[in-house]
Amino acid sequence: MDAQAHLHELSLSLARLPGVGRRSAERMALALARKPDDADTLVRALNATREHVRVCTHCGSMTPAGVDPCRLCTSPTRDDTVLCVVEDPSDIIAIEASGGFIGRYHSLMGKLSPMSGQGPSQLRAEALLARLVGAAFSEIILAISTDVEGDATCSYIRELLDAQDVCVTRLAFGLPAGSGIAYSDSITLDRALKGRQSV
Amino acid sequence: MDAQAHLHELSLSLARLPGVGRRSAERMALALARKPDDADTLVRALNATREHVRVCTHCGSMTPAGVDPCRLCTSPTRDDTVLCVVEDPSDIIAIEASGGFIGRYHSLMGKLSPMSGQGPSQLRAEALLARLVGAAFSEIILAISTDVEGDATCSYIRELLDAQDVCVTRLAFGLPAGSGIAYSDSITLDRALKGRQSV
Repeated sequence: MDAQAHLHELSLSLARLPGVGRRSAERMALALARKPDDADTLVRALNATREHVRVCTHCGSMTPAGVDPCRLCTSPTRDDTVLCVVEDPSDIIAIEASGGFIGRYHSLMGKLSPMSGQGPSQLRAEALLARLVGAAFSEIILAISTDVEGDATCSYIRELLDAQDVCVTRLAFGLPAGSGIAYSDSITLDRALKGRQSV
Repeated sequence: MDAQAHLHELSLSLARLPGVGRRSAERMALALARKPDDADTLVRALNATREHVRVCTHCGSMTPAGVDPCRLCTSPTRDDTVLCVVEDPSDIIAIEASGGFIGRYHSLMGKLSPMSGQGPSQLRAEALLARLVGAAFSEIILAISTDVEGDATCSYIRELLDAQDVCVTRLAFGLPAGSGIAYSDSITLDRALKGRQSV
């Protein structure tokens, strides 16, 4: 292979990353070819992640190799009656950082998105039902994104849980922190108005 | 290090890539942790590029290891009287793909950009002057981007070449192929009008 072919191979692997298009991948590949130190650092970080990081087979969050179920699943101090359903492990990290939740998690590993070929069978929904058997969950919180695909995913999970004796809730809609009224889109404003609360 | 720390290291190395912010890097790191096959493919491609691809010390384009100066610099069929000055090796690939140029290349490895700490000393401008000594170039084409930083870079290179007995040109301004008048920005339209040609 010549230099061009190697760069093409590299940009193909980079284009598999989320949010990376063909042109960005080509720019990244050239940058990495020009800066061997950056390429080396990336290879080391990839190898370390590959070796030490696993997906928890229980909740789907990231866990050190050998720790499965993860600490979030096994911690005795967390609340066993509330389950928070998210799309991605990254959502678990964000919710943990907010400090507002001490229950258990379940990652669906995606949301319903027919456009990108993501159907119900790709979601970890069966695993969610399996987790409810014999469990003490009284509430299931859907912490799913608020776009059209997120709404569809929530409806789907809601129906799936219909037969279960459990309360299903969804995160509040409204204005994000630090936002101005004039800068909010009309759907957000409408939902914030409908959900207004006494102060 | 725990799983979180490894993921953080990985996203730090990914955030060094051009056009990748902190959040995108975190998403990429999680995607790579979840898909070990993708991570392996990326590591292989990085190692192959690291091993087989070099920067031509002459023109700055990408070349197979051991082929320096590169084939574009040494090819006997290319025109030795025209030199095309570009910002990046990726521009050389794009111009080669257009098929409209058969001269030599010189990559500056960037453009003047005080905001990102890129000054004249970071450009390969001295190397450009050195290449003109005893060379047969009668025209130097500046194939530099048409933003403010590109304009500044062109002025800088133009001044640098003032004492040289060589014609300096810049790529034509105008409408890009396939574009509609109504969708063009006003600066492009203004330049396209000023540069109008008889048909």
